[in-house]
Amino acid sequence: MTVERLEAGLKKIKEYVSEEEAERMMTADTLKDLAPDLRKYIVEFGYGEIYSRPGLDNKQRQLVTISSLVTQGTIPQIKTHVQRGLTVGLTKTEIVESIMQLIPYVGFPRVQNALMAAKELLENE
Amino acid sequence: MTVERLEAGLKKIKEYVSEEEAERMMTADTLKDLAPDLRKYIVEFGYGEIYSRPGLDNKQRQLVTISSLVTQGTIPQIKTHVQRGLTVGLTKTEIVESIMQLIPYVGFPRVQNALMAAKELLENE
Amino acid sequence: MTVERLEAGLKKIKEYVSEEEAERMMTADTLKDLAPDLRKYIVEFGYGEIYSRPGLDNKQRQLVTISSLVTQGTIPQIKTHVQRGLTVGLTKTEIVESIMQLIPYVGFPRVQNALMAAKELLENE
Amino acid sequence: MTVERLEAGLKKIKEYVSEEEAERMMTADTLKDLAPDLRKYIVEFGYGEIYSRPGLDNKQRQLVTISSLVTQGTIPQIKTHVQRGLTVGLTKTEIVESIMQLIPYVGFPRVQNALMAAKELLENE
Amino acid sequence: MTVERLEAGLKKIKEYVSEEEAERMMTADTLKDLAPDLRKYIVEFGYGEIYSRPGLDNKQRQLVTISSLVTQGTIPQIKTHVQRGLTVGLTKTEIVESIMQLIPYVGFPRVQNALMAAKELLENE
Amino acid sequence: MTVERLEAGLKKIKEYVSEEEAERMMTADTLKDLAPDLRKYIVEFGYGEIYSRPGLDNKQRQLVTISSLVTQGTIPQIKTHVQRGLTVGLTKTEIVESIMQLIPYVGFPRVQNALMAAKELLENE
Repeated sequence: MTVERLEAGLKKIKEYVSEEEAERMMTADTLKDLAPDLRKYIVEFGYGEIYSRPGLDNKQRQLVTISSLVTQGTIPQIKTHVQRGLTVGLTKTEIVESIMQLIPYVGFPRVQNALMAAKELLENE
Repeated sequence: MTVERLEAGLKKIKEYVSEEEAERMMTADTLKDLAPDLRKYIVEFGYGEIYSRPGLDNKQRQLVTISSLVTQGTIPQIKTHVQRGLTVGLTKTEIVESIMQLIPYVGFPRVQNALMAAKELLENE
Repeated sequence: MTVERLEAGLKKIKEYVSEEEAERMMTADTLKDLAPDLRKYIVEFGYGEIYSRPGLDNKQRQLVTISSLVTQGTIPQIKTHVQRGLTVGLTKTEIVESIMQLIPYVGFPRVQNALMAAKELLENE
Repeated sequence: MTVERLEAGLKKIKEYVSEEEAERMMTADTLKDLAPDLRKYIVEFGYGEIYSRPGLDNKQRQLVTISSLVTQGTIPQIKTHVQRGLTVGLTKTEIVESIMQLIPYVGFPRVQNALMAAKELLENE
Repeated sequence: MTVERLEAGLKKIKEYVSEEEAERMMTADTLKDLAPDLRKYIVEFGYGEIYSRPGLDNKQRQLVTISSLVTQGTIPQIKTHVQRGLTVGLTKTEIVESIMQLIPYVGFPRVQNALMAAKELLENE
Repeated sequence: MTVERLEAGLKKIKEYVSEEEAERMMTADTLKDLAPDLRKYIVEFGYGEIYSRPGLDNKQRQLVTISSLVTQGTIPQIKTHVQRGLTVGLTKTEIVESIMQLIPYVGFPRVQNALMAAKELLENE
């Protein structure tokens, strides 16, 4: 993509993570050697395109994202996006209640595993 | 559960569906003969307990629910909850953007199938 | 595999379907031209090996199988195995209750879709 | 829900776990501070409603539950429910065979991961 | 993204579909009114970025894609990508065998449903 | 199955793993006591039947298998089959690109988790 897109993504992602974290994402990426473009696509396409769309605020985007990750049971990303949810201003209550709201749709096990994964992050709030 | 719980659920569900629809849910339930308690549990536990919790508004609950259903690909429920989302006041844009927000998390196929399922409902808005 | 294995599978599958159905499975298989070995593997490996193992009775095997299919949401196979469950002697109640038992583990949508799929078969009982 | 429902759930769950374990579930719940109602719902709705339904015995309920969890691959709950299966009287053989029965429906990886998770519990039998 | 990216994607997609089909994708898109950017992202990001990466040929990309779609059970996309597989030169045998190869990894139901979905397309070969 | 089938499977699996590894699979199997037939079925049915089919080469089979495992998110098997992919001659690049190809079909989280799981194996290449 274009440099403009990368910059748009980096600008957008700084609304979701600290400036240091944003830098770290581009420099200290664990997959930098194996798959250098993965992070680039997350920033350029994910944040430069999708997260930059109008129509939803950052809190709504994080609620939708956390809900999908809890449904999939992808634990590392549940932690990452619970943190980003707190950063964009979701309250601990909004995050816990969004996960509890999924009980009728995914059942208890995925809800329980997601809350266990988010526990430390949320209790430090 | 208790009559109180059933009434609480029916009261809550009327925030998500029309009065007629709420009545129909309890009377014209297709699974009434085969599994009479299924609807009862959805109303009593789903709406009387989970949807009745504090901490999220009805729009947030529907965004979280639609996101989980799109991630699972359960088409009939995507339609049902897109309609309930419109009823609680989510705009067509908010619903479409919530589904688009999932592209980086579930990929294009589930997003495409969800939008196809919701198309008619949303275009009638 | 060996002719013995194929015969063992055909013998076993006749405990789950009518003799006519068993014949039909081998002769009128819709995928016979495209993937002739698929049915062979289902009979030889599925029924000749797995279903022929000691330790569970036919009713237990069908409860376990139906539970997995409801969890996956694979509708055509839910219908097939609900029918086989009835054939091996599971009651309509046991099948409905096994699907209802999954509400806390998969949520309402998959349970609802499975009961809708099994409705006609079970109501003809 | 009502106190009656909570008591019904606690009474039922004691058929699946030791008295000590049942007490521990209500008192030493790791998610007690973050999501105090999660355990309550599991006991009240899960055990007080669903597990309290007629039509299946406790062994059948655990076979169905374990099958769903193996299909989903939710490891912590596989361990919990394999233990509950042993408590309600399922033999080691019935549990292993139920997991093996899923090979044709979920493939080898989920079966292998489930057996690895249950290994220690089952070998202590 | 940039016009260059859109053009790169359209150029790449023409290796997977007929020229007419490529035009149709951009003009007669059923979701054009509801979600005009969905198709754009598929072409720009999907084909302009991912499919345009070096390291795999078009046949390998389609084998990998079909395998993922069979595993997910997303029927409409299985049909689309089986057709694209034929267009890039995969033989009917390679496609059927790739689906059969998944039996040990996803079980029989998803393989059977995928072959049923692809049947007409493949038998017209 | 027959001794012939077991031998066919062992012969075939030696194309995917070292001779020592093949021996270890049959002798030092961790699930040998709990589920002695699991490994037997993997070798006899998986390798003696499915992997022994004509129509695909070993590299194609591993691409298809890895794609399915990444889509499912079954981490231990992703590691096993990335190693087997390297053994049959897939390059590090072909494996990484096959996982990257899945971004549009499963989203970033499963791709990221798969690359993290395969990182050590691939960087030792």
